[in-house]
Amino acid sequence: MSEKLPIGLEDVKDAARILDGQIERTPLRRSRTLSEITGADIWIKFENLQFTAAFKERGALNKLARLTDEEKKVGVIAASAGNHAQGVAYHGRRLGIPVTIAMPVTTPFNKVEHTRAFGARVLLKGHTFDEAKEHAEQVRQREGLTWIHPFDDPLIMAGQGTAALEMFEDKPDFDTLVVPIGGGGLISGMATVAKAHNPDIEIVGVQAAMYPAMLNIREGREPHGGGASIAEGISVKNPGHLTRRVIDALVDDIVLVEEAHLERAITLFVDVEKTVAEGAGAAGLAALLAHPDRFAGKKVGLILCGGNIDTRLLASVLTRALVREKRLANIRIIGDDRPGLLALVSTIIGDNGANIMEVAHNRIALDVPAKGAEFDILMETRDAQHTQEVIDALTQAGYPPRQN
Amino acid sequence: MSEKLPIGLEDVKDAARILDGQIERTPLRRSRTLSEITGADIWIKFENLQFTAAFKERGALNKLARLTDEEKKVGVIAASAGNHAQGVAYHGRRLGIPVTIAMPVTTPFNKVEHTRAFGARVLLKGHTFDEAKEHAEQVRQREGLTWIHPFDDPLIMAGQGTAALEMFEDKPDFDTLVVPIGGGGLISGMATVAKAHNPDIEIVGVQAAMYPAMLNIREGREPHGGGASIAEGISVKNPGHLTRRVIDALVDDIVLVEEAHLERAITLFVDVEKTVAEGAGAAGLAALLAHPDRFAGKKVGLILCGGNIDTRLLASVLTRALVREKRLANIRIIGDDRPGLLALVSTIIGDNGANIMEVAHNRIALDVPAKGAEFDILMETRDAQHTQEVIDALTQAGYPPRQN
Repeated sequence: MSEKLPIGLEDVKDAARILDGQIERTPLRRSRTLSEITGADIWIKFENLQFTAAFKERGALNKLARLTDEEKKVGVIAASAGNHAQGVAYHGRRLGIPVTIAMPVTTPFNKVEHTRAFGARVLLKGHTFDEAKEHAEQVRQREGLTWIHPFDDPLIMAGQGTAALEMFEDKPDFDTLVVPIGGGGLISGMATVAKAHNPDIEIVGVQAAMYPAMLNIREGREPHGGGASIAEGISVKNPGHLTRRVIDALVDDIVLVEEAHLERAITLFVDVEKTVAEGAGAAGLAALLAHPDRFAGKKVGLILCGGNIDTRLLASVLTRALVREKRLANIRIIGDDRPGLLALVSTIIGDNGANIMEVAHNRIALDVPAKGAEFDILMETRDAQHTQEVIDALTQAGYPPRQN
Repeated sequence: MSEKLPIGLEDVKDAARILDGQIERTPLRRSRTLSEITGADIWIKFENLQFTAAFKERGALNKLARLTDEEKKVGVIAASAGNHAQGVAYHGRRLGIPVTIAMPVTTPFNKVEHTRAFGARVLLKGHTFDEAKEHAEQVRQREGLTWIHPFDDPLIMAGQGTAALEMFEDKPDFDTLVVPIGGGGLISGMATVAKAHNPDIEIVGVQAAMYPAMLNIREGREPHGGGASIAEGISVKNPGHLTRRVIDALVDDIVLVEEAHLERAITLFVDVEKTVAEGAGAAGLAALLAHPDRFAGKKVGLILCGGNIDTRLLASVLTRALVREKRLANIRIIGDDRPGLLALVSTIIGDNGANIMEVAHNRIALDVPAKGAEFDILMETRDAQHTQEVIDALTQAGYPPRQN
């Protein structure tokens, strides 16, 4: 560590003084049940309880508060359709700074409205995020606005680090912090605090397997990433240059999580903690689910860094979890095409206390004899054991179902 | 108030001393956004953050702790498949008291397992809750167990009241408390505290419109109720006799909420507060949504009294909210039955950025000309405005959809 890093502990402490009383002091709570499930001693920082439901306010406010009077007057610009946009717009309004946010034209109306509701000017331009950003850069130059980068800025990084200061105030003796990595702003700030507090604390970054950009850089490969990960907030192809220097120096390890781990983590947060996490917000817990041996027995600090998940997506994640638990089961019944077969089958299902949700009746499938019939039935049961009871009853009645 | 009520402030204070350090001291937080939406100044007590995710632990522990050594040794019994069962089982184990819980045989496996995981003996008997209770009474007599009533017991009522003590510690100046009523245990304890603190504080009870039993009693009608309300926890046909005396004396008003209000309140808790409420837990917020004028401008304390909602039900509530917001739209297209019609229609939908989720193709519907075809298409859009854009595009192309 001969070269000076972009930020140090004092920068984070300066940020904390600026943020004091201006953002939520979010709680840190131990989760007994998640500790039992994972085998680690899990403590969660609930950053989803910030007003905009994400940690991004910390960096945004630290940056906005340091602008010169002239810069504040002229205004700022950022490109984001997510938590960064909300953080900049919300604190910009509080400080009386004109805020412009660039988003692609395809951004959902409610996200646009949400940002406008904070008084921001929203520029809808371009069909991709890169196009929107390009347009924003033109506007920035033309109007002399100050660019608020979502991560690659020492003031942003230091602001995000304040979350770790609060965590150590509440509990000084973590063995490990597990922190999601997108651009790297959050982990670089948090690692700076943790290593200053105690160099033995292990800092583990988490990336979605679909976007392993920072891990690739660390291991000398090209950053890459693509596809629609549920962890939108860390779906970053090109992480920061300042952040990667801090990560190189202070982060011990980067682990990857698959989409299924992220989905399971979101579901557990709802089921066990009664709290709502977006995909990126659930990445820390997902890492413990994906790599339980790696963290077993350790005092682990997780940051539930955001709670902005679309309700449609959340509903879908919860429903898919039921399919995995076999509380929603698709069965296929093949029988003779006589009148009353569906009545017979559905009576058996009903008598066994299961609930039929959908029936598709397919008389022309080629895997069925010409005079046969095929039903696909989606049924809701109490649990996997109950599903098996229904299947047994149908089998006994001479209609053994196939499960899809 | 010439007759002495079953409980007083000192009983609740005694309970608080017993509960101190044994249950979660749950947070009270103001909700800025819900205050804006409802026009009231809303403060929420997050009782869904208790270990078993409901306030029921308070009364259960207060009761269990007061048993004689002999009673503790012999054990206790309760009939419940819900939060009361969890509360009794959890604290029974902590105190080394044998716990028996009676549930109907139809109780979902995971609820049974959850209760067994706390070391309770679970008796599955009877097909209805009343049958399970009857069986429990026989077991109680045979084995000399102590009955732990879910609400109609002064120690249970006083225990629940401790939630209000904490609320006034955190914020002494509420105008109104809005409290769900099932059997009446929670509101009788909370009203006792509130009226002792300040007789001018208004106490408003909330019941699901499907189960208006306490309101009926108050207004001299027979209690009744039936059907599958989403607010299971307050779906009580026969409220308590002790509780109703307290409610008569101290509760200013009882309001009803429809299922739609309960669903909207659950959705808002997820969307705005990033927290999970069960139907009964959302009843207070539902009351403010149903009767906004009644509470406008007042400092209102709500108790989010439980978070145990089945994930399947939660997913369904969130999805139905999207249908109400027209982000999921069912459209029906009637056209000529030529090859390529579905391709044409789905191209228009896709080009306009909407997502087709289901297609039902009905060639034999009688409201279609013999040579025509009918599609039902379920599509996902960004918002109501986007839905309208897709409909306009289809209309322009000569296929005006009907919306179901």
